[in-house]
Amino acid sequence: MLDHGGGILAAAHRYGIAVEDWLDLSTGLNPRGWPVPELPANCWQRLPEENDGLEAAAAAYYGSDALLPVAGSQSAIQTLPLLRSRCVVGMLATSYAEHAHAWLRRGHQVLRFAPDELEMVIDRVNVLLLVNPNNPTGWHAPASQLNNWRERLATRGGWLIVDEAFMDCTPENSVLPLIGTPGLVVLRSIGKFFGLAGARVGFVFAWQEMLAQLREELGPWTLAGPARRVSMAALQDTAWQESARLRLAHDSTRLGATLRQHGLMPTGSTALFQWLRHPQAAALHDALARRGILCRHFAESSSLRFGLPASEVDWQKLVAGLMTIRSTIGWIQDSQARPHRVSSSPANDGARDG
Amino acid sequence: MLDHGGGILAAAHRYGIAVEDWLDLSTGLNPRGWPVPELPANCWQRLPEENDGLEAAAAAYYGSDALLPVAGSQSAIQTLPLLRSRCVVGMLATSYAEHAHAWLRRGHQVLRFAPDELEMVIDRVNVLLLVNPNNPTGWHAPASQLNNWRERLATRGGWLIVDEAFMDCTPENSVLPLIGTPGLVVLRSIGKFFGLAGARVGFVFAWQEMLAQLREELGPWTLAGPARRVSMAALQDTAWQESARLRLAHDSTRLGATLRQHGLMPTGSTALFQWLRHPQAAALHDALARRGILCRHFAESSSLRFGLPASEVDWQKLVAGLMTIRSTIGWIQDSQARPHRVSSSPANDGARDG
Repeated sequence: MLDHGGGILAAAHRYGIAVEDWLDLSTGLNPRGWPVPELPANCWQRLPEENDGLEAAAAAYYGSDALLPVAGSQSAIQTLPLLRSRCVVGMLATSYAEHAHAWLRRGHQVLRFAPDELEMVIDRVNVLLLVNPNNPTGWHAPASQLNNWRERLATRGGWLIVDEAFMDCTPENSVLPLIGTPGLVVLRSIGKFFGLAGARVGFVFAWQEMLAQLREELGPWTLAGPARRVSMAALQDTAWQESARLRLAHDSTRLGATLRQHGLMPTGSTALFQWLRHPQAAALHDALARRGILCRHFAESSSLRFGLPASEVDWQKLVAGLMTIRSTIGWIQDSQARPHRVSSSPANDGARDG
Repeated sequence: MLDHGGGILAAAHRYGIAVEDWLDLSTGLNPRGWPVPELPANCWQRLPEENDGLEAAAAAYYGSDALLPVAGSQSAIQTLPLLRSRCVVGMLATSYAEHAHAWLRRGHQVLRFAPDELEMVIDRVNVLLLVNPNNPTGWHAPASQLNNWRERLATRGGWLIVDEAFMDCTPENSVLPLIGTPGLVVLRSIGKFFGLAGARVGFVFAWQEMLAQLREELGPWTLAGPARRVSMAALQDTAWQESARLRLAHDSTRLGATLRQHGLMPTGSTALFQWLRHPQAAALHDALARRGILCRHFAESSSLRFGLPASEVDWQKLVAGLMTIRSTIGWIQDSQARPHRVSSSPANDGARDG
């Protein structure tokens, strides 16, 4: 399986730092998630049932009832490739890795493109799969552009799959109003914006025949009963949602400014994370981890993704960590300027390690 | 998808009886499930992680660490048929229907047998899949017999899959001590004995290569974080487990006696349900449902399964329901004794309906 953010147990083991001492910025989850109340015992005891109110709450929140609840978007990501015979799937080169992994596993061909190549290659693929806004780069496409691509795909029986896991803070950019048009599949999740990643609840929106196929493929009781209850209540809590949207936008802006103040220039962002390419991303990730700060390192794109700190204490810990590694960054940048000089001085080795 | 017990929302709709007014005996779940305490918020918020203590707790409870946690045994039931090329699968004719459904969907051939035919047909199948003890008939096979069948299957690359969903009250009959021998797969679940069907937590036990394949097939984060936490604690609560075993055995015996007192003779049982064949099973199911008592009707075997009442109030409601339909049963038995007489009297029509 692929590596992901959130592996705090593994990080604790590797760096010898207790789990509770970490500042975990390795995920793009809202660190102040929807507050879960105590639950009635029967949601644990009984088999979960459909149409218990969850579907209706989701239809109201998302503005479409052409939906199927799934055990996290991951569940849909793994299942969609089973519903087409082998075909060509286009994706962004830097995007959420589980998508490519899932289509490749089922024998499909996956082609990866830069954002500005999509317009040229749209007629060469059967499925275009985009994360919008994209994780981790923050790239996003307007709904009108996506609809144009969907139309061109649909004339050849193709699909446009849009993973909107990070769309909740910018619902005006969603393609959900287009659901029902041929070939459009949209994935949503309560993991990120609602900060309920542990619940494993997501939704697939599509045309009815596709939803019926997915439902049959996934089988009964895919969501835990308590997860149905909690996600239903979170989707209904419009006051919390409005407040969270404002707070996340504010905190993401603050995070970008904090990183810049310490010499790290974000390349892209959403309301839930800042992302930056950096030639020494691996060394920075390691240096921060040694100080108990876990961000997410993407080796292939040599980049780092930072999620939002939860509290002032966490913000201060991040700032302190960034300050102490500033010399590391400085050294890295300095050494890049002199690539031909091989140094083995103790001072440089120390900086490299810590 | 197949029909199942637990469909109280659907029954409430069909019979016009409010959800809270039903006595739901349609499942084989412990009606006094493990008491779930309040949970820490972080299990909702963070992505679930492996080896958080759940795997260790399960290994201690089941006595084997060759396991993979899955989102309910249903998840394993649906996935196992993907891990073999098309083959012949033997099952009992009357058993848990999801197994046959899952293997047929993936193109396998499913042959169904009576229990006393198994010994003769073992060499004609590639996979023998047994629910032990069987749901709903209560039939069970000794571990030594199962091991003999496993050996004969394994010499030809075959598998013995044993679904032990109802084994927790009789752990001495489990084949888990044989895990690691070739071809043996065992499914367990916390849904029934622990009464935590809403959590969607089960375990697959098998050889390591099989577990690795299953893990890759199922992907990451298959269990909800709160479900991991709750099931870990339930598996560790040995005092509750001992008390539950005694209580369930007592209550199942009482249920059998209660049914017999009212003219319904159980054909088989486990600690969690009583099962009876009856030529008028459908009419009895309907007559009880009209009185707000939901049992499970199996049309193919013309049988009924009764789960355990949770409280004295529920026992009394069951007894009252059985008493008022006694005239129905009497009429049915009476009319069976006179098959050639077609009656259209108002009294008989009334009995047939209610």
